[in-house]
Amino acid sequence: MPIITILLAIFKPIMPNIEILTIGEELLIGQTINTNAAWIGEKLNEIGLKVHRHTTITDDKEIIKQTLHEAAQRSNVILITGGLGATNDDVTKKSLCEYFNVGLVRHENVLTHIKEIYSRRNRTLNLAMESQADLPENCTCIFNHAGIAPGMWFDENNVIYVSMPGVPYEMKEMMQNFVLPELKKHFSKQQIYHHKIWIASLGESYIAEKLQDIENNLPQHIQLAYLPQIGILQLRFTAIGKDIDVLIQECQEIEHKVCAVFGNAIVGIGEISLPETVANLLKEKSLTISTAESCTGGYLAHLFTSVAGSSTYFMGSVVSYDTSIKIQQLGVNPKDVEKYGVVSEQIAIQMAEGVRKLLNTDIALSTTGIAGPDGGDDLNPVGTVWIGYTDAQKSFARRFVFEKDRLRNIQRASLMALDILRKELIK
Amino acid sequence: MPIITILLAIFKPIMPNIEILTIGEELLIGQTINTNAAWIGEKLNEIGLKVHRHTTITDDKEIIKQTLHEAAQRSNVILITGGLGATNDDVTKKSLCEYFNVGLVRHENVLTHIKEIYSRRNRTLNLAMESQADLPENCTCIFNHAGIAPGMWFDENNVIYVSMPGVPYEMKEMMQNFVLPELKKHFSKQQIYHHKIWIASLGESYIAEKLQDIENNLPQHIQLAYLPQIGILQLRFTAIGKDIDVLIQECQEIEHKVCAVFGNAIVGIGEISLPETVANLLKEKSLTISTAESCTGGYLAHLFTSVAGSSTYFMGSVVSYDTSIKIQQLGVNPKDVEKYGVVSEQIAIQMAEGVRKLLNTDIALSTTGIAGPDGGDDLNPVGTVWIGYTDAQKSFARRFVFEKDRLRNIQRASLMALDILRKELIK
Repeated sequence: MPIITILLAIFKPIMPNIEILTIGEELLIGQTINTNAAWIGEKLNEIGLKVHRHTTITDDKEIIKQTLHEAAQRSNVILITGGLGATNDDVTKKSLCEYFNVGLVRHENVLTHIKEIYSRRNRTLNLAMESQADLPENCTCIFNHAGIAPGMWFDENNVIYVSMPGVPYEMKEMMQNFVLPELKKHFSKQQIYHHKIWIASLGESYIAEKLQDIENNLPQHIQLAYLPQIGILQLRFTAIGKDIDVLIQECQEIEHKVCAVFGNAIVGIGEISLPETVANLLKEKSLTISTAESCTGGYLAHLFTSVAGSSTYFMGSVVSYDTSIKIQQLGVNPKDVEKYGVVSEQIAIQMAEGVRKLLNTDIALSTTGIAGPDGGDDLNPVGTVWIGYTDAQKSFARRFVFEKDRLRNIQRASLMALDILRKELIK
Repeated sequence: MPIITILLAIFKPIMPNIEILTIGEELLIGQTINTNAAWIGEKLNEIGLKVHRHTTITDDKEIIKQTLHEAAQRSNVILITGGLGATNDDVTKKSLCEYFNVGLVRHENVLTHIKEIYSRRNRTLNLAMESQADLPENCTCIFNHAGIAPGMWFDENNVIYVSMPGVPYEMKEMMQNFVLPELKKHFSKQQIYHHKIWIASLGESYIAEKLQDIENNLPQHIQLAYLPQIGILQLRFTAIGKDIDVLIQECQEIEHKVCAVFGNAIVGIGEISLPETVANLLKEKSLTISTAESCTGGYLAHLFTSVAGSSTYFMGSVVSYDTSIKIQQLGVNPKDVEKYGVVSEQIAIQMAEGVRKLLNTDIALSTTGIAGPDGGDDLNPVGTVWIGYTDAQKSFARRFVFEKDRLRNIQRASLMALDILRKELIK
């Protein structure tokens, strides 16, 4: 199909053809869902570059070489993940050596790094581990700050090949600190600006309907994407142009219009999570908080403590999974447990008030519900959660009914509790 | 690379080369994570078939045709998803017509089905919607019981092409009710058996070294893969053959050998997680547990309560983020805090003993450390965690030094605590 090849060649200087090659049997048999490819696609998109193709193959030298050969015919950049471990089933490095017909050279700084890691773990090095410091002669080493196996950057015959580990954490570190900046230097001429607005607790189609006017009046160079997550939705406006200051100003004007539509449902602007938004509000107002958790089982405390520096406002949590602990530690009234049931407005409020007193904080949150997948009855089906709030002035609780999936219910209830707190803090 | 082609051709009658082609811009820019491919891979694997390659491309006729052409050179089955809607950006059907050089024919039963659906939704049909009943002359229609756009089955020049919608719900219905049974009829002669062994707290290359003898002596039809996760590693033995009972027996013999090498580092066999393993051990022995968490901030409790039915053995947790709570609630000695520091063996043990007494459980675990990314000193660098254990007979604490990433440290410390518990439970 020479026509395509020619067309692609014409477009090369404007926008490179980038393809992703993920290597790993576990991806093909469905044992692991390929989140790396989606993440890479998104990050490239943020710097104005686009993935044209993504291929997954097994750890087989001949197939890897053949696929690289095909990819090099149609692409300027080939981003490879996987197959860089020290075990026998990892053959990416060997395949690259054979593909480029080169030998290996030892990188002493990598060896020192490997030795340090192993000595910290009190392990002795063997030859297989040491050999991770050997890289193809023709590559630039991408140091692995998050693990052991280094990445590799090749620039051969106008094609850039980048080989990275399949471990998401290590791949992301290399992409962010080395590969993305390098690719941007090579290819990105236009400025791209992303403006993110976070909206809580509303449905996607409701939001889309409310935004119809704004969306229809967007200029051609600004695009809107709806990116729903659990309990929260990100609106991402992507503006492309020559002058970054103009793009920022345009997006800020749109932001004002969006804020006018949604009011206090706007959780935050930019790169911020709900726990971070709440953290900033608590710090700003010098307020402390504690939690009493039943159905969320520690996950709400985890959301608070996932933010660095949370010890200044988050005092602690009582995960009162057993009813006796609600009564003994939190001072919940056993007669009310009998009368209203443990999943009730009354118990949610008593839990919140109990932990606030016990841990001596300004505010307290509580959760009690049926996370599932089993349990529940007509009155309180699986997914029913009461979230309690209390401060010096008032106490209340709100009821939600989520779905049947245990983990999602735990996550949604915890995020909803954070959002209730957020709304109180901005009042 | 004619050698590969010949080799693949030789193997064709035994095991077909199956590849997946997913079509959709949203997959390439990372807006949607490709769960379809993983699901298809898993389902094929369950009937003894294997995906050799998975490719994602954008909705572009020329690229689709070119990719089909390449795929047909190396594969016997091409499973295509996406691009079957009624909007302009959906071009899969047109591409297939041009690729096979055929026209369309109307399927009246599909049109009736479409009319029914639209009338139920009170919508009027337009031409674009009606045209969804038109299919390429040379295909077998796969009726869409879960939606509108039908699927297509082609059998041309010894290659099977299957085109399905990208909507997971519709694709799955077609796969389960039509495609999987058909493929099984065509190809499935061999049985596949996966045997999974989980190993905790050891490095991948250390494990590989210890397994070298076993790995080198594996018969040709059994393969070993190393699949590391945070704090745990899965060894997966995949056996292919005619008789499933023989395969199971062979894998069990290998399992005995692996267990002999790793002893109590083996966490579990089969489809099981570390929290589930610990859950089963606690239930078996009718023991209850509580946790006192500082640096893990509720995540350890979350791991326990992520298992359905955990309320029978997990009583609760005191997340004592602030030192005052360690002292007031858990009875930690303030003089020892001053003397040894809050991140110390003594405080970890006192926290565990304190929560065990407070919540009246058989066993208790505790964590105290510096999750990062900041803080720490020469004595206790970022990533230092003490994990405490106590039961009626004894108390102890163990020290770990992880890395600088806050979230990963929280996860690793929590999993390590579970593994310490597991080892005590199997003593």
